[in-house]
Amino acid sequence: MASTFGKIFSVTTWGESHGPAVGAVVDGCPAGLPLCEEDIQFYLDRRRPGQGAMTTARDEKDKVRILSGVFEGKTTGTPISFAVFNEDQRSHDYADIEKWYRPGHADLCYDMKYGFRDYRGGGRSSARETIGRVCAGAVARKFLAQVAGTEFIAWVDSVGNIDCPEFDIGTLTHESIEASPVRCPVPEASTKMEEEILDAKKNADSIGGTVRLLVRGVPAALGEPVFDRLDALLAQAMLSIPACKGFEIGSGFAAARMRGSRHNDEIYFDGKQYHTRTNNAGGCVGGISNGEDILCRMAFKPTATIAQAQKTAGRGGENGELAAKGRHDPCVAVRAPVIVESMAAIVLADLYLQQKRHCL
Amino acid sequence: MASTFGKIFSVTTWGESHGPAVGAVVDGCPAGLPLCEEDIQFYLDRRRPGQGAMTTARDEKDKVRILSGVFEGKTTGTPISFAVFNEDQRSHDYADIEKWYRPGHADLCYDMKYGFRDYRGGGRSSARETIGRVCAGAVARKFLAQVAGTEFIAWVDSVGNIDCPEFDIGTLTHESIEASPVRCPVPEASTKMEEEILDAKKNADSIGGTVRLLVRGVPAALGEPVFDRLDALLAQAMLSIPACKGFEIGSGFAAARMRGSRHNDEIYFDGKQYHTRTNNAGGCVGGISNGEDILCRMAFKPTATIAQAQKTAGRGGENGELAAKGRHDPCVAVRAPVIVESMAAIVLADLYLQQKRHCL
Amino acid sequence: MASTFGKIFSVTTWGESHGPAVGAVVDGCPAGLPLCEEDIQFYLDRRRPGQGAMTTARDEKDKVRILSGVFEGKTTGTPISFAVFNEDQRSHDYADIEKWYRPGHADLCYDMKYGFRDYRGGGRSSARETIGRVCAGAVARKFLAQVAGTEFIAWVDSVGNIDCPEFDIGTLTHESIEASPVRCPVPEASTKMEEEILDAKKNADSIGGTVRLLVRGVPAALGEPVFDRLDALLAQAMLSIPACKGFEIGSGFAAARMRGSRHNDEIYFDGKQYHTRTNNAGGCVGGISNGEDILCRMAFKPTATIAQAQKTAGRGGENGELAAKGRHDPCVAVRAPVIVESMAAIVLADLYLQQKRHCL
Amino acid sequence: MASTFGKIFSVTTWGESHGPAVGAVVDGCPAGLPLCEEDIQFYLDRRRPGQGAMTTARDEKDKVRILSGVFEGKTTGTPISFAVFNEDQRSHDYADIEKWYRPGHADLCYDMKYGFRDYRGGGRSSARETIGRVCAGAVARKFLAQVAGTEFIAWVDSVGNIDCPEFDIGTLTHESIEASPVRCPVPEASTKMEEEILDAKKNADSIGGTVRLLVRGVPAALGEPVFDRLDALLAQAMLSIPACKGFEIGSGFAAARMRGSRHNDEIYFDGKQYHTRTNNAGGCVGGISNGEDILCRMAFKPTATIAQAQKTAGRGGENGELAAKGRHDPCVAVRAPVIVESMAAIVLADLYLQQKRHCL
Repeated sequence: MASTFGKIFSVTTWGESHGPAVGAVVDGCPAGLPLCEEDIQFYLDRRRPGQGAMTTARDEKDKVRILSGVFEGKTTGTPISFAVFNEDQRSHDYADIEKWYRPGHADLCYDMKYGFRDYRGGGRSSARETIGRVCAGAVARKFLAQVAGTEFIAWVDSVGNIDCPEFDIGTLTHESIEASPVRCPVPEASTKMEEEILDAKKNADSIGGTVRLLVRGVPAALGEPVFDRLDALLAQAMLSIPACKGFEIGSGFAAARMRGSRHNDEIYFDGKQYHTRTNNAGGCVGGISNGEDILCRMAFKPTATIAQAQKTAGRGGENGELAAKGRHDPCVAVRAPVIVESMAAIVLADLYLQQKRHCL
Repeated sequence: MASTFGKIFSVTTWGESHGPAVGAVVDGCPAGLPLCEEDIQFYLDRRRPGQGAMTTARDEKDKVRILSGVFEGKTTGTPISFAVFNEDQRSHDYADIEKWYRPGHADLCYDMKYGFRDYRGGGRSSARETIGRVCAGAVARKFLAQVAGTEFIAWVDSVGNIDCPEFDIGTLTHESIEASPVRCPVPEASTKMEEEILDAKKNADSIGGTVRLLVRGVPAALGEPVFDRLDALLAQAMLSIPACKGFEIGSGFAAARMRGSRHNDEIYFDGKQYHTRTNNAGGCVGGISNGEDILCRMAFKPTATIAQAQKTAGRGGENGELAAKGRHDPCVAVRAPVIVESMAAIVLADLYLQQKRHCL
Repeated sequence: MASTFGKIFSVTTWGESHGPAVGAVVDGCPAGLPLCEEDIQFYLDRRRPGQGAMTTARDEKDKVRILSGVFEGKTTGTPISFAVFNEDQRSHDYADIEKWYRPGHADLCYDMKYGFRDYRGGGRSSARETIGRVCAGAVARKFLAQVAGTEFIAWVDSVGNIDCPEFDIGTLTHESIEASPVRCPVPEASTKMEEEILDAKKNADSIGGTVRLLVRGVPAALGEPVFDRLDALLAQAMLSIPACKGFEIGSGFAAARMRGSRHNDEIYFDGKQYHTRTNNAGGCVGGISNGEDILCRMAFKPTATIAQAQKTAGRGGENGELAAKGRHDPCVAVRAPVIVESMAAIVLADLYLQQKRHCL
Repeated sequence: MASTFGKIFSVTTWGESHGPAVGAVVDGCPAGLPLCEEDIQFYLDRRRPGQGAMTTARDEKDKVRILSGVFEGKTTGTPISFAVFNEDQRSHDYADIEKWYRPGHADLCYDMKYGFRDYRGGGRSSARETIGRVCAGAVARKFLAQVAGTEFIAWVDSVGNIDCPEFDIGTLTHESIEASPVRCPVPEASTKMEEEILDAKKNADSIGGTVRLLVRGVPAALGEPVFDRLDALLAQAMLSIPACKGFEIGSGFAAARMRGSRHNDEIYFDGKQYHTRTNNAGGCVGGISNGEDILCRMAFKPTATIAQAQKTAGRGGENGELAAKGRHDPCVAVRAPVIVESMAAIVLADLYLQQKRHCL
């Protein structure tokens, strides 16, 4: 069940880059949630490639169909099935890849694991698999928005050595992020990142980046010690996204340089509920949400497939060189935010439903 | 099942700091593995507090008992049950904590989640819960050592701003690590880290640190796309350890600053098998092990419980101040290595057994 | 994850009777298994209604599409997605059912559970859901046929009070079963059952029946004590089929009337392997297959939806009467054999893959 | 995780007949439930052998210890660990069994599965494993009694060919059952059953029996279509009990002989809620509880281990004969009721907690 994630609100994704379709099944969503295809399409459109020089030229409509689980505009409590049929597949672009293992790509590992692989466009390891996650995430966020007003916002925090400066995240909106072609809400940083990406592209290269995630309106008490802690599940969820190589929550790696007296977030009671004055914890203590904003950061490595020649080996054991053809994002981080948000929403929806058991 | 981890080789931990005992049940271990209490005790002794000024003064023997699953010195394939009875509990040390929420600690979140909590020594959120993980990890590593020669080595890579310099990990041994009171194999760095920890302690404070993990002799092909990727499960496993706030694999966050041409590890075939010339991937590509060493790094925040006074709130909503009594490690990172190794071994044992299904 | 079954070879079904489609996702099937749509269609055609007076007049082609997980005619080890688009839906046939709860049907319980329901054709509780199971079962049986020569045969053992007499199951074939319109391999019994069903139909009524399952070529050692025993999982699998109300394995309920000296199957070693002289156990002892044939029997209640008027209550609490329209099988047992075989194959495939972990 | 049962309220059992202890871990029980060792001991005492001629002479106190998860008399929401240390083990009684496979017993299958086995007293396949289930069931029934007033009552319905006549189950109490040495509430039947068992014992034989289960005060809406239906999980739970060979719910196998017009339970609304006039469904329709009593029946085969000589084979492939020594219940059905009740309570507690997700 490695393609299934979540215990109560659970998601199963399926599909390869160049198969007939990709999709997902969401099981365990409560009944009665208003849901239609537009709710999903909105996020798929944000995920979609072909939106400019920053992303791959592959142009796909990625039109979602809901095949089950919704009746008269509301979820029925039974599995919700999503399918997006693949279009614009140019399998011939990928001929070389059948023979040569792309350095940094899953090609070799898939062959070692399964004995052979669907080499067209990365098959199951393609980022197209994340379409199913975005579908499921759209359900999860709609659910959490309704029951708790929860809101998920992710953006690009760095591209190569260009860092987004600190800014007031209190005023951050999706609009300010989507206004940037690289999904960085600070215009000067956005411009520099764009240049950095174009420079990589011009050099037949790719570039890494980081993404930050902010979750507002988090219900307190979510997270199931000891293994299904909120932060542990977020870490799994994020590292399960292709190209993600690191995760930190709150002050994260910086916390390792601090003393406790500085790191510990002071607690106070405001007459109605408990708060912390700072948020070094990133909204999660002991694996449980404390009601403050969740803040985390993810590292994405540079796209593995690049047009410049790289030394590598082939299926038959021959050593040689590959200059990959095909259309690839020079910086995967730019398309990651909506996927990051989706995975976080799935984690929180599942934990929200698990927490309900404690209301005796 | 939030206290259960793993799908085939699965571990359930139980127990609180000041309850009668802590322990674990391992289900799904193959039959026929030689196993005795000494195999477990060896690692528990490394985890144990009371080993010097670096760790808490709480002195516990942590003597393990195997209660089931082993017959005539070998595992029977049925659940292996471990128990460590708690001793040296001074509940009276924790009286203040019943009333005041420790900043940075799980106290408040446990109350929000469960309505009340076992306040003695952190209860379930205590690091004593990790005893069960170390027991289970001992089984997992013995199994992997036998079937694949796999070896798990973790050490302290930084304490506060004291970083361990780069060294040749090819020659790294457990002995060189355990020779250091702070579990840092580079003597000069070890000495400085020790000073840093003593300084924090002297100031009634605590300090963060990072831990690195090296796994040698990793079988290729482990990891189950898409959600049970090797790196995703390692991330969950590590973040589920108390005080862990960040995880990265291979070049990790540094990868986000690189171009693909530099990051991609060149593949070559040596006549027998595939290798990579560099290891930016940290032994894991597309969520699957490629047979190279696994390398990752974890951030541990400073211990939440400190002796100096901190502003906080109480159970009844009162705002006030707490100077915690009790015995606490000033730097949890120092005791983390054996826990880190144990969790990694559990992940790999489970994925190793899952991979067996592909041998038609 | 209540629509997911199996731990390694796992199946998720989705879809409602009158939604756009029904289907399933199989995750965990080993890579390299030859598979094409015809492999699936063969069994769907056996499940299909519209095959004569014995079954509903609803005529559907139930044409399956494989949407992922197969490349160049072989499974890739990644999720296999199946979809069957619904045709020939006459929603207007079901208008009354929106208002009145059919006695014996899931209508009322779905409303109590989910707050509302897709009333068209039973929605998720419709037997059309089993299409996904048959798809998944087709994969499971192909896999087991290849690795172990396992064969699954189910037939109708009784309809109402017409019992199939004992016969030599050693010579039983699918052909002899499919030759009967009621899927009973003994011609005289088949004729009487047919009459019984037609009589029920003529009286605007329905009739119950039992189905027996024989599995030949069962690998020994399958079944995971204590909760995932082979017989326990078969029981769950069978009772999860709509209308199934009872399960027994081997001598089953008759065993409760026996003494041990008669019931215990004598064990002997034939020079190569162990056998039993009798098979009261039904091929399963201590929850583990012993290599003998698996034999079990399932009870199916009469179809709930009948054309004669029945007293019942409505959504608004009104008490009244319903004479259901629509097309319904008068005896669900007749279509059950292929579903029974499919579920058994899924159970055995999963346990077969789980057992692999013991080969150290 | 084959020794773990349940998704939210989950139970892991461990332990062998002649190991140091047996026990269980309950994870997912809501916090705040009053619980003490006496709550558990009450049911263990009902399960315990040594209660007369009807059961084995093995005399064990089976004293339970709660090792975690309870604080100040209430569950904390964290895992509850139970241990019962084994006493009165006469391993020498079991010497023959090391060599010869008992017909009808799990010995041979355990060897085929695991390569070797703990032959002392059946090891893991011993009925002592059910101690863990009774511990967990005690928690589940206490929880359900508190939140819904649910009550679980099981009794012996037949022994060999002695059937308990129909009686008014509306007045059935635990007391009337426990007053009978064979746990049959109808005195004349009880006497005959007792004679039947003694006769079997005298003849160095054993005898089968059936057990019925009644659950009163069942909350409506429990059960998760399609695979985790209430009846499907009950079937798994019951068949997972050693020696259980059959399960039926409501009219069960008799339903297969009925017409729909007779089987369908008429629904009516009494002004407050829906009811059915009859209960052929056994309280479960479409896999979901309808609020009526749950009624099911389980078949238990005769005890495999008998004192008279039986032909069998040995570990080395030799064919010979075994007359088993040791102390064994002549009729396992007599001790099954509390185990049946416990498993049913675990199923319902889990489904009760799962159902909570639908309260938006």
